[in-house]
Amino acid sequence: MTRFGVPSILLFFAFLITPSSFAKDSLDPLPSWRSGAVKTSILEFVKKVTNPKGADFVPLADRVATFDNDGTLWQEKPLVQGVFMLERLKVLVANDPALMENETVKRATLEGLGFLEHVHGKELVELLNLTQTNLSQATFDSEGKKFLESARHPRWNKRYIDLTYKPMTELLGLLRKNGFKVYIVSGAGVDFMRLIPNTVYGLSPNEFIGSSFVKEMRASGGHSDFWILPQIRSANDKAEKVINIDLHVGKRPVFAAGNVGGGGDVGMLTYSKERQGASLQLLVNHDDATREFSYAETNDISLAAAKKFGFLVISMKDDWRNIFGEDRPPAVREHRKVPAAN
Amino acid sequence: MTRFGVPSILLFFAFLITPSSFAKDSLDPLPSWRSGAVKTSILEFVKKVTNPKGADFVPLADRVATFDNDGTLWQEKPLVQGVFMLERLKVLVANDPALMENETVKRATLEGLGFLEHVHGKELVELLNLTQTNLSQATFDSEGKKFLESARHPRWNKRYIDLTYKPMTELLGLLRKNGFKVYIVSGAGVDFMRLIPNTVYGLSPNEFIGSSFVKEMRASGGHSDFWILPQIRSANDKAEKVINIDLHVGKRPVFAAGNVGGGGDVGMLTYSKERQGASLQLLVNHDDATREFSYAETNDISLAAAKKFGFLVISMKDDWRNIFGEDRPPAVREHRKVPAAN
Repeated sequence: MTRFGVPSILLFFAFLITPSSFAKDSLDPLPSWRSGAVKTSILEFVKKVTNPKGADFVPLADRVATFDNDGTLWQEKPLVQGVFMLERLKVLVANDPALMENETVKRATLEGLGFLEHVHGKELVELLNLTQTNLSQATFDSEGKKFLESARHPRWNKRYIDLTYKPMTELLGLLRKNGFKVYIVSGAGVDFMRLIPNTVYGLSPNEFIGSSFVKEMRASGGHSDFWILPQIRSANDKAEKVINIDLHVGKRPVFAAGNVGGGGDVGMLTYSKERQGASLQLLVNHDDATREFSYAETNDISLAAAKKFGFLVISMKDDWRNIFGEDRPPAVREHRKVPAAN
Repeated sequence: MTRFGVPSILLFFAFLITPSSFAKDSLDPLPSWRSGAVKTSILEFVKKVTNPKGADFVPLADRVATFDNDGTLWQEKPLVQGVFMLERLKVLVANDPALMENETVKRATLEGLGFLEHVHGKELVELLNLTQTNLSQATFDSEGKKFLESARHPRWNKRYIDLTYKPMTELLGLLRKNGFKVYIVSGAGVDFMRLIPNTVYGLSPNEFIGSSFVKEMRASGGHSDFWILPQIRSANDKAEKVINIDLHVGKRPVFAAGNVGGGGDVGMLTYSKERQGASLQLLVNHDDATREFSYAETNDISLAAAKKFGFLVISMKDDWRNIFGEDRPPAVREHRKVPAAN
């Protein structure tokens, strides 16, 4: 007899016959989230849209979720593709010091990461063109991969790809387990994001929607490859995110998540909110200077939209127990059904 | 005892215990194809890329198939979206007879379907802008749906959506059953193709890659909808098909199919052919004036490319037993294993 008064042989059988789905469901799918209104709302939302008998049921084919990446799924101070740009710039300047005669190149080189804090759109395009175009796809991919596999964040001395928000990757898992097709919809380049190792988000290349350059196919010696031209095809931010979701997905997202940062996700979240039928929108608020960062937007555009349209605001400070996986999830006691003796 | 000398009760049990997959596998997956080199090559290709022990195995995540639509999956004389354009034009002209002062409108109106045989790119864009833009998405969708559900081909008096090639829809089914993700990559508009009833090809909106117009989101009264602007964003033909496959899929197709028509698929088929690892390309040749049409290209561009790169050419006349489902598949004798008496 065990100390619970049940013969251990029965417990053994209980283990054998417990369907594995039951065992899994009894675990908290979001252990890095603190209990509270936000976590409860997410769990209840997923439950109601997947309940075929409920009024808010969403058929499998319509379960589309779209997530911003920078500042929503991983940290954005500094912007990861911006760091890649600066790293490429260093190499280019070392090979061709005359580049320093260009004012933007000079400032970016001298200021380093700080430059990314105040870079303007025009300067960004200039430096992206210089560092990430006029290349074959193979060269871009190989340089980007090397960068992502090694570059580390100066504050945590961790690789950028290891600085994803644990609560959010848990959420991606929960949604996928419930039949959602998850897309990342980011202002970053689609080609850059596709180089993030599959182990980070578990997405396929077709599930990334991002900014893009004009490309052309070039062939030589029976082999063909894309050539990336210094011309932007789509700058996937604000209204353009909505246009690209329509082009790539063709359905309004049932679930959408963005962050307070540049107001870039308000359009996507509103697009989701105005879908016919159930929907949920999350907005990550960076209010945790201790564990991550604390920053706001001019005029609080995103927070004002959240209030107006009813997006759920996530306080990193209050709603997330664990940000980068620094804590282990609490031990979870599994409750197993014990069959009645017969 | 049956005439085969097996007790019928045993046959009955054999039926019960035969796994359904066995019963299905024993059926010809391509009954509308005539036996021959093309059919054999397709079946052997699917077998080898799905055999995990073979040298040509393609992992599930890489099983991408891309199909042109007009002339590859359904008939293209006349082009279905072209007929929609002419139907919309009739309505516009009836409402505003002054439109007939426009030379292109006048010719299209007077010539009818014949106009589509010799329309130039510039005229096409002019009439597409006139008939399929400056509309809300809701209006476009509703008009397009009505058209597709009712419009009939003058020769067969069948709806266009019922004039898909049976051998090709069987092939889509075979590929999907073997884990392929199938995309339709067409010069037609992505918004138009998404209105094809799901029962026709069984694809989701995200599995259509097509031409597109510039759109913007317009909101009124708490409701938002896209507005289609008279400006082409992407003309998904020739080289642009390859660029869009990269943008939407991010992988070279293992399987690609196009047709002899305007040379529009050579780029896509070559892109597939040059992938590292196993791949198969099909080119539908319209050589059956009796059951469909017989037409060729200037300089036989596509057939020349097929010869050069090794695409498999489908002769509609010889390789397809059944084009539009006019014949029933032949009775297939199912061979069932009979369990040994014990």
